[in-house]
This record gives sequence, structure tokens and C-alpha cells, in this order.
Amino acid sequence: MLHILSASQFNQKELYEILNLAHEMEIILNKGGSEMARGKILATLFYEPSTRTRLSFESAMIRLGGKIISETDVNFSSITKGEVLQDTIRIVSGYSDIVAIRSKTVGDAQLASQYSSVPILNGGDGAGEHPTQALLDLYTIFKQFKLGKETLEVSFVGDLKYGRTVHSLVTILRNFEGIKINFIAPTEIAIPEKYVQQGDKIFTDLSDEILKKSDVIYDTRIQKERFEEFSDYERLKEAFVFDPEKVNKMKDRAILMHPLPRVNEILQTVDVLPQAKYFEQAQNGVPTRMALIAKVLDFF
Amino acid sequence: MLHILSASQFNQKELYEILNLAHEMEIILNKGGSEMARGKILATLFYEPSTRTRLSFESAMIRLGGKIISETDVNFSSITKGEVLQDTIRIVSGYSDIVAIRSKTVGDAQLASQYSSVPILNGGDGAGEHPTQALLDLYTIFKQFKLGKETLEVSFVGDLKYGRTVHSLVTILRNFEGIKINFIAPTEIAIPEKYVQQGDKIFTDLSDEILKKSDVIYDTRIQKERFEEFSDYERLKEAFVFDPEKVNKMKDRAILMHPLPRVNEILQTVDVLPQAKYFEQAQNGVPTRMALIAKVLDFF
Amino acid sequence: MLHILSASQFNQKELYEILNLAHEMEIILNKGGSEMARGKILATLFYEPSTRTRLSFESAMIRLGGKIISETDVNFSSITKGEVLQDTIRIVSGYSDIVAIRSKTVGDAQLASQYSSVPILNGGDGAGEHPTQALLDLYTIFKQFKLGKETLEVSFVGDLKYGRTVHSLVTILRNFEGIKINFIAPTEIAIPEKYVQQGDKIFTDLSDEILKKSDVIYDTRIQKERFEEFSDYERLKEAFVFDPEKVNKMKDRAILMHPLPRVNEILQTVDVLPQAKYFEQAQNGVPTRMALIAKVLDFF
Repeated sequence: MLHILSASQFNQKELYEILNLAHEMEIILNKGGSEMARGKILATLFYEPSTRTRLSFESAMIRLGGKIISETDVNFSSITKGEVLQDTIRIVSGYSDIVAIRSKTVGDAQLASQYSSVPILNGGDGAGEHPTQALLDLYTIFKQFKLGKETLEVSFVGDLKYGRTVHSLVTILRNFEGIKINFIAPTEIAIPEKYVQQGDKIFTDLSDEILKKSDVIYDTRIQKERFEEFSDYERLKEAFVFDPEKVNKMKDRAILMHPLPRVNEILQTVDVLPQAKYFEQAQNGVPTRMALIAKVLDFF
Repeated sequence: MLHILSASQFNQKELYEILNLAHEMEIILNKGGSEMARGKILATLFYEPSTRTRLSFESAMIRLGGKIISETDVNFSSITKGEVLQDTIRIVSGYSDIVAIRSKTVGDAQLASQYSSVPILNGGDGAGEHPTQALLDLYTIFKQFKLGKETLEVSFVGDLKYGRTVHSLVTILRNFEGIKINFIAPTEIAIPEKYVQQGDKIFTDLSDEILKKSDVIYDTRIQKERFEEFSDYERLKEAFVFDPEKVNKMKDRAILMHPLPRVNEILQTVDVLPQAKYFEQAQNGVPTRMALIAKVLDFF
Repeated sequence: MLHILSASQFNQKELYEILNLAHEMEIILNKGGSEMARGKILATLFYEPSTRTRLSFESAMIRLGGKIISETDVNFSSITKGEVLQDTIRIVSGYSDIVAIRSKTVGDAQLASQYSSVPILNGGDGAGEHPTQALLDLYTIFKQFKLGKETLEVSFVGDLKYGRTVHSLVTILRNFEGIKINFIAPTEIAIPEKYVQQGDKIFTDLSDEILKKSDVIYDTRIQKERFEEFSDYERLKEAFVFDPEKVNKMKDRAILMHPLPRVNEILQTVDVLPQAKYFEQAQNGVPTRMALIAKVLDFF
């Protein structure tokens, strides 16, 4: 039984399979969906709220013809009564054909997969993994470029220390040839060493050079609670804001990505520029998750 | 693309179309529903709880063969993180075929419609509009009377100052001939001038004469927080309570409506009287919303 | 119209019908479900959270081909506004084909049934009844034994004073021949007299003899708030914990049941033993509730 637990579980061949399947799913979506998951149930168990991720999973399942049961109460009734996750999963997996779980605790999805009678999809486990986000990010790059067949410069910008989606996407990009990686972050929130490989470049300033040469800029939110001095936060936040002036320096075919929600780090005036791909990126969650559901349900 | 945003967006011809479509939908409902929205997704985004409105929308979509994704958490996860409504709508509209939204802020549905890739149904925006309620209210009147073809005396009773449903229904009724309107409310919560037209009559007491001559009485709840003096509230509340004695004074064919929930303003002993139409009115929400969904999805 | 309100509403013939129907439903489940409830809507109204019960109802409805509308907010919006349960039920029953309700107040399901236009399923009303749980418990026994045709010794263990599921299952078991009942509980939480019949045996200690001779042990959680002295709780809790040593004393064909959630009263090391039936018991909720839904919708 296949579970989707970690960005590092896939090899290149499997990643291309998922990307191609996501592409097929986008065609199916444009034709009005499918009935291949008819009679199947996806259970979404969200111990931590996430409208975007949950609705994207649910939309994907419905577009495949399946149905949903859902628990979104942060204080799960059974958990409140002292039940361990293992028991909840054994029970809920008995009610459904797939379980998508999001929790605050690293390792919960892995633990769930050991007790579940059906495939587990990790919808984010605290500071741990968020593999379906990494795959939709990858799919967004795949749609724009010849991933693995052309040289691509990918620049990660913002909070690279705590950014779960950055860690997962970096990990997954290591499977492909020709990816040059730049990490651009204030030292307080620099990329942890374990994600850095030979050839990567590390910067503390978002320079024009980076803007001009990147094919992909993956921006993330800088949160003020990461800084001891509020003045440091204010200064840095300012320097990292994407405005039309900055984005216009990017190549025409380059793309600006963001896992969303964005607050002030990308101005709304950027949204209309051709490089702004973050909303399309969010929308790519549906075909990507359709592909993953189809895969774990063994439709392909 | 058609959005349902305001009670004032429709002309008479469009209103008759919706009413006739709601009637067709009621026939479809009685035959067990339809499959015309098969494969379609309604997203219900309720920033403010409303069991009745949300479940009525969802039931309508399901009766048409469609499916639902839903966010009912008052403190939306993405909004909590600082995301603007525009972003949420761009994303959620990418997961669905229609979005029904309810919020606490006037103008939110209008704003949503500017950023959505799919039709928006306004499920109530604070003190602003509640057009689908106004249309189901209109449909309730349409089912009982020859709307626009016979003279009807419609009396609005209760909190006419803050009653969003009253404002919307008054607005929509202006499209039809032969409607005489009476406003009956304590001065503290009288109808705002902008809703009053020449020919309307304004009263502060619920007289026997009103009871006897009205074809439609549209009652609303009087809330004590509207009054400076609790004694005023107590006195007035009493005078406006509908009991069997009052309702028996109404014409046989006349109807007593209420947007619900009612608390003490209509006694439960009234429920069995033939004039009591408030539960049927609530139920009319389903065919009316089916009609609106079918309309915005371009099925007719 | 048939409502499922109380464990005591069924006679032996009806119980066998439900058990056989649940068995048929399990076969249907294993074949991938049914479409017999296509176009039908189950409304789940949960005034008190219960992931297990709600998701089990919803899964059952979906496996039959039906769809769901759901209100799980403990503070129901309409109820918050002062609406009585009767009004909510009249309205929600107008949006659906069945209503499953769970509440904190004894008698709510019964009250609901008087105002509903569709069948009511009682999903637990406070300290009152939980008939669908009793029926899935019964079905679990039925799957293992020749219920009513062989002599069975059923031992209830734990909190027998407040355990709603114990009271319901005891009541329902009285319909069958050859059931010997033992009640094992500390005096503080002993079985109330009204549930005891001639021939039943009452114990305060969980002896080896009980373990060895029982065909069914139905364990429940002992909660510390039931004891005046914490030391009493600690001592008794210890004596009632099921560990592998205790469970290995049970007959090979005997079964250990628990309504779940369990906390510490059954160790996780017991889960792998053949007598451990509590997870299968939970899973039996789906075919049992499918049977009940099919029954109230008059499919059989």
C-alpha cells in the first residue's frame, strides 16, 4: 500500500510519473472531471486548520467522482477524550478509502500510516513534511519549463529556516539535473546547513542580479516573531517585498511562486504581471492531488 | 458571468424567470431531484455561522446532483494568517464551480465577485444584502398569490431598522404592480426613510385593522439591545407578539411570514394555524436556491 | 414513519431483521457499496462532538450512495440565537431525507421525532439513549456467536452507573434467550438496580473466574471524577486494567469489547490478541448504520 508521507520518498522516475499523471488530470479537469473514484471516500482529518489544503484535497477527490467525510475540529472529540492518534486512525480508516491528515506534530502522518488500513496522505505534520505541497510546486515548475532537460536557476527567498515548503521542494528538486539553487535570506532565518549542497549559493540580500538571472523565485513569508529586534524585522521585511519594480526585472519567462497565504511580502499590484504564478500554483493543487489520489487508489 | 449579489440587481422580467424556475425546481424536488449539476462543486464559505442558510444552499446543490466543499470556521485559517478576502476567493474559486459566501462585512460578496473565477452567491454580508433570502420570501408570496396581477397589502412588522431581510424584500417588491406596503414598528426601530416610497403607510402599533386587511404579514424579531430602556423593550415586545388571537383576525388566505429564527415573537401555538407560513417559507429556500444555482451555472 | 430513538423500541423479530440486514450490508460494502440511496440526503446535527459516531453515520450514508449535509458546531448558530430544537428540526428536516442528531439533553431525539418531516436517528442524547451503538454492539456479538441459540455469558465491566452504552446493550440483550449477565464494577459506579434482573450476577472485583468463563466482556472507561477519593480511583483503575495477562485468561473464542475511546483501561499490547474486538466493533458501525438507514428509508 502506497502512502504519501515525505518529499524524500520519491525517485526521479516516480516524480515524472506523478507529474505526467497530474498533467492528465488537468485535461480530465478541463473536460469536467471523472467518475473513476465513484463510491470511494476520502476522510480529511485536520488537527490544524488549513482551508486551502483541505479544500484542495476535497475538490480533487470530488473531481475524481469520490466523496468526503471530514473532521476539522482542532480539538478532535476523541483526542480530547484522551484517545491516541493510533486508535483514531484505525477507526477512521475503517470508514474510508483514503485518509488525508494534517497535524501539529512532526511524525504524525508516518505514525498514522503504520495503523491505517487505507493509504495516508500527509497534509502537513507541523514543522515536518508537506509532500503534496512540494509536488504541486514541482508541477508548477514542470508546466513552465523542461524540468530536468534545461538548466534552471531556482532562488528561494524569505524565511528559509522555518519554511517547511522550502525544505520539501529543495529536497525534491535534488532528483533533477541542471537545477542551480540560490538561497536568499537574512542570517536570522538562513537555510539550515543540512539542505545545502555543493554548488548552491547563499545570499543575504535580494539583489538585482538574482532577480535578473532566476528562472524560478520561490518566495515565503518573513514572520516578525523570528527576530529579536523589531527594527531588524522592519528593515529586512522592506528589503524583501516584491513590488512591480522588482518583478519587472525578472525574465519574461521566469515565474514568481509563493505557497500562500501572502500578506505584504508580494504587493497586490504584482498580481497582474505575467511572472506572478502563485494563484495558478495554488490551483495546481487540484490536479496534483487528483494524481496522488489516483495513484494510492491504484487507478494507474 | 452572473453573480447573485443584491436584491436590487433584478428587473421584473428576471424575477418572474427566477420564480418560474423555482417552481420547476419544486416539481423536480418532488420527483426526487436532478442530476443536472453532476460533477459540479459548490463551495460554501461562511465567515459567520448560519445553519439554515448554509444547509439550504448545500441541500439545493445536492438536489441538483452536485457536491459540496465547505469552510464554516468563523476564524478562517487563511484569513487568520492575514490573507485578504480577494486571495481566498481567487483560490477557492479555483477549487469549485460556484461560491456561496456569508460574511460580517458589507460589500464582501461584491468584492468577492470581482476576484472570483466562478459565480458568487451572496449568502448575506453583514448589515448589507441577503438576496437569496429576499428571493425565497418573494417565492413564498408568489406561491400564494397572483403576484403583480392582484392587489396585495404587505405589512412589515418588528425591527424594520436593522432587519436586512425586510430591506431586501421591500426593494424587490417595488418591481411589481399592486403592492401596498405598511411598515409597523416602534419608533426606535422604524423603517429607514430610504426604503419608504409614496403610498406606503407607517404605523407604530400593530392594530386589528392591519391584522385584518393584510394579505402578507412579514414579522421579524425585536431585539432588546436596540432599546435604551429595558421597560420600553418589554412593553413593545409584548404588543408585537403574535398569538392565536391575533392571527385568527387575519384573512383566511393571508399569510404570516418570518425569516426565522423566531424566539418569542410568534407563539408556538400559532404554528398550527393556516396562516402560519414561516416553516414553508424556510423550505422554499431549497427550490429557490436550486433555481439560482441552475441560473448562474447556465443550465437554463 | 420509523425513527430509531431507543434501544428498547425493538422486539426480537425486529432485532434479527436488523442484524441480518447489517450482514447483507457488510457484503454490499465488500463489493464496493451501493447506489440505493442515490439522491438522498442525510443531515447530521451534532450538538455534542463525536467524530466516531458522526463519521460512521456519514460513511454509511455514502456507502449507500447518498450524500451529507452537516452541522457540527457545538454552539449551533440558530440555537445560539434562541431557536428551540423543534424549529431547527422542522427546518432541517425540510432540507434532507433523514436526520441523525446527537445532543447533550435526554429526550432531544424523541422531541425531534415529533417535529421532523423525515426519520430521526438518535446518535446519543446525553445520559439517555444511544441505540445505534447498542445495535452495532449487538451485531458484533451476533457475528461471533449464535445469538439466542447458544448460551452466552456476557460480563459488563467498568463504569456501569453512567455508561450509556452499557444500559442500552443490556436492555437490548434481554430480547434473547440464553444470555447470562454479570456486572463487575466498584460500588461507587455499580449498575443501577433498574437494569438488573433475576439471574444476573453482581461483582465488585474482576476475578479470574469471570475472565475465564465469559464469552463476551464489555469493558468501559472508569473516570476519576466519579470518585470522591483519588486513591480509590487509582486503586480500582489498576485492578480493572486489561493487560495481555488478563486477556490471555479469556477463552479463545471469547471477545473483549469496548465502545471506545479507550485510554488506559485496555493496554495497546492487548490489541494484537485474538480476543480484542473493539476496533472491529467500531467498524461494525458502518454496516449497522447502513442497515438502519436502509430501514428508515424503506428500502427493505
